[in-house]
Amino acid sequence: MGAMTEADRAPKQDRSRVTRQRLLEAAVACLAEHGWAGSTVSVVAERAGVSRGAAQHHFRTREELFTAAVEYVAEERSAALRGLFPDAAGGAAGADRAAVVAALVDLYTGPLFRAALQLWVAASNEEQLSPRVAELEARVGRETHRIAVELLGADESRPGVRETVQGLLDMARGLGLANLLTDDAGRRKRVVAEWGRLVDEALR
Amino acid sequence: MGAMTEADRAPKQDRSRVTRQRLLEAAVACLAEHGWAGSTVSVVAERAGVSRGAAQHHFRTREELFTAAVEYVAEERSAALRGLFPDAAGGAAGADRAAVVAALVDLYTGPLFRAALQLWVAASNEEQLSPRVAELEARVGRETHRIAVELLGADESRPGVRETVQGLLDMARGLGLANLLTDDAGRRKRVVAEWGRLVDEALR
Repeated sequence: MGAMTEADRAPKQDRSRVTRQRLLEAAVACLAEHGWAGSTVSVVAERAGVSRGAAQHHFRTREELFTAAVEYVAEERSAALRGLFPDAAGGAAGADRAAVVAALVDLYTGPLFRAALQLWVAASNEEQLSPRVAELEARVGRETHRIAVELLGADESRPGVRETVQGLLDMARGLGLANLLTDDAGRRKRVVAEWGRLVDEALR
Repeated sequence: MGAMTEADRAPKQDRSRVTRQRLLEAAVACLAEHGWAGSTVSVVAERAGVSRGAAQHHFRTREELFTAAVEYVAEERSAALRGLFPDAAGGAAGADRAAVVAALVDLYTGPLFRAALQLWVAASNEEQLSPRVAELEARVGRETHRIAVELLGADESRPGVRETVQGLLDMARGLGLANLLTDDAGRRKRVVAEWGRLVDEALR
C-alpha cells in the first residue's frame, strides 16, 4: 500500500490486463493465418504493438502464450453463446433447438476453430506441446458439452442422450474442418437444418 | 516394340509400379508422423528405400508426391470399405446399418486421416498447395458420400436423406479430429452406437 493510492494502482493493473488481452487476440489471429510454424512470440508482439520484453513478462514461452490464447478465446466464445440464449436455462423448447444447434456449429467455423486446429495439429507432432494442448482440449470440450446440454434442455439421465449431444458436437467439429479450405456455408446450412431436426426428435 | 518382348517389358513396368507404391505409402506414414514441415521428398525416398533421383522421376514436386499419396490411400480405403460389405449393393438392412456407420467412422481414425489432416492444415497456410488439396478433398468427399449412400441403402430422393448422410460423414470427420491427441476409442464407440441407431431410424 504505502504511498500508492487506489487510483494509482488501478490504471496500471488495467494497462497490464489490456496488454495481455491484446497479446492473446493477436496470437489467435496469427495462429489462424500463419499456422504454428509461422507463429512466434516476436511476430505476435509486433502484431499486438507490444515490445518483446513486455510480451515475455506476460508469457515466458511460446507454448504458454498460444495455449493461453486458445483458452481465452474459447472462454469468450462460450460466454457469447450463453448470451445468445439467456432464457434457455432449464431447457429449450423444441422450436428453439434448431437455433441452438446452428449456434453451436457456428462456434466451430470461425478464426478460433482455425487457431485451435493449428494448435492441435502442431501438438500432434511436437511432444513439448502435446500434453498441454490435450489437457486444454479436454477442458474446452467438457465446458462446451455442459453448455450444449443446458441450452438444448437435454436430460442426460435418459439413455443415449449424452451420446446424442456428443455426436452433435463431433459433427460441428467435422463441419469446421470441412470449412478449412473452401467456403462450405451453403452445404453446412442444409446439414445443420436436417441434423437440428434429428437432434430435436431424439431429445424429445 | 523392336527387339523388346512382352516378357522384358512387364517386369520393368511392375518394378516401376512397386517403387511408386512404396513412395506413396512412405509419404502417408511420414505426413501422419512428422507433419508437412517434416515431410520432404528426400525423407520419403529414404524411408521407402528409393534413391532421390528415382523418387523425382515419379514425382516432380513435393506437392505432387503428397497429394498423390493421400489420394492413393483414400482409394485403397474406399475399396477396402466396399469389400467389407459385398452384399450391400441395393440397400443395407436396418440391422446392418449400425455396422456400416461404424466402418465409415473407422475410415477417419487411422493414419490416412492423420496424413490428410496434416495436408489440409498445411494447405490452409500455403497458397501453392491449397487449390490442389481443395480439389482432392472435394473428389475424395464425393466418392466417400457415394459409397456411404450405397452401403446404407439411403434413398436420396427423399427430402433430408442426403443431408443426414452428409452430417454423418461430418460427424465421422469430427470424431477423427477428437482422436488426434488422445485415444478417444471408448467415447467414440458409444457415440457411434447411438448415432448408428438414430441414422438407421432416419433412413427407414
